[in-house]
Amino acid sequence: MAATHTDKAFEQDLRNLREKLLAMGAKVEALVAQSVRALTDRDSALAEKVVGADREVNRLEVDIDDLCRRILALRQPAASDLRLITTALKIVTDLERIGDLAVNIAERAMDLNQVPPLAPYVDTPKLADLAQQQVKKALDAFVSGDAAKAEEVLKGDDLLDALFLKIFNELLAYMMEDSRNIRRATALMFIAKHLERVGDHALNVAEMVIYMVRGKDVRHPKSRELPE
Amino acid sequence: MAATHTDKAFEQDLRNLREKLLAMGAKVEALVAQSVRALTDRDSALAEKVVGADREVNRLEVDIDDLCRRILALRQPAASDLRLITTALKIVTDLERIGDLAVNIAERAMDLNQVPPLAPYVDTPKLADLAQQQVKKALDAFVSGDAAKAEEVLKGDDLLDALFLKIFNELLAYMMEDSRNIRRATALMFIAKHLERVGDHALNVAEMVIYMVRGKDVRHPKSRELPE
Repeated sequence: MAATHTDKAFEQDLRNLREKLLAMGAKVEALVAQSVRALTDRDSALAEKVVGADREVNRLEVDIDDLCRRILALRQPAASDLRLITTALKIVTDLERIGDLAVNIAERAMDLNQVPPLAPYVDTPKLADLAQQQVKKALDAFVSGDAAKAEEVLKGDDLLDALFLKIFNELLAYMMEDSRNIRRATALMFIAKHLERVGDHALNVAEMVIYMVRGKDVRHPKSRELPE
Repeated sequence: MAATHTDKAFEQDLRNLREKLLAMGAKVEALVAQSVRALTDRDSALAEKVVGADREVNRLEVDIDDLCRRILALRQPAASDLRLITTALKIVTDLERIGDLAVNIAERAMDLNQVPPLAPYVDTPKLADLAQQQVKKALDAFVSGDAAKAEEVLKGDDLLDALFLKIFNELLAYMMEDSRNIRRATALMFIAKHLERVGDHALNVAEMVIYMVRGKDVRHPKSRELPE
């Protein structure tokens, strides 16, 4: 979008911003993967590491926010460049919240690692992979200003919701079957919900990217259901 | 913060922005209250209304985002004014997500209204009230640039978490007691979790306000636990 921009320093700022956002995205994706691995491998030391990484993610958010404000103050961008920066300010918050979700998953994993596993966690890592792919794709759509790729994220969300529902129903069955499963199944339900929410953040980012590129609001499933 | 500002048109823009944010805040607070009333009064028509109001909330978000961009483009604010606008851009997203949570609660209420109630929902409306108060206080802190009031929101979150835990454990007990309670108790757990998340959004807003006013980052409980 800023491809036609001539100001070299400004170009450098935008490159810098894109790089920082991608780096933060990669960081929170890794935390999500690690938090789920802490569960599946019963590795509470890894869970501790995820919890400890929260501060670093917060620093990245503050860092990117400040960069956005600096660009706004020094370059006073207009039109599509302004939309890029203001969108980045919102996206960074979604990325930080994904980090928070990884921390919550890691904390629940630590509890679950204290007791025998309820069942092989086959679908939970699958759900985590799906959610991470969505985050990655949404961020790529942002840095490349690619609305079509962002549309793919919107479509991908159905897959994620379906897998969450499958896990949810399996856990419900475990609860019904034996009340001794209820505590663990409830914890696993919240972990699955957290992973679905990671996907929701990717969805939010994708919707903002489409709005940024096309100026057309597709934010939130509800609005997508209606003819625009 | 912008009190010393001389530019009348700019002052009007900021007043306009604050009013729109407060109006959107009042709107999503009302939706949260209605979504819980739809559950406690078994009023699915009210739940439908909440679901239908989602589009209006999305419009408010787009409207406020556009106003922020217009202010940035036309007034090119600096320093504290710039921080005010960029914070508003983030806050509006939190408000919109609160609206989404109200919709999710309303949808679950519709399901629960099809079956006999599990138990009197005494604490759930209490949790909703607490969450709404937190949202209102956080927004007031923003429009008045009052970091001390924002600090109160941070403190208030513990109360909210405690009440959520109480509800959670009660529902767990219902599940253990009779497997026929599990489906309904699980739905009520997610409703309580949604209300806790409304409070988390208020917390996020409050943390952003403190950062806006003091330039000191207190975002996220984790960072608060550590000496600054």
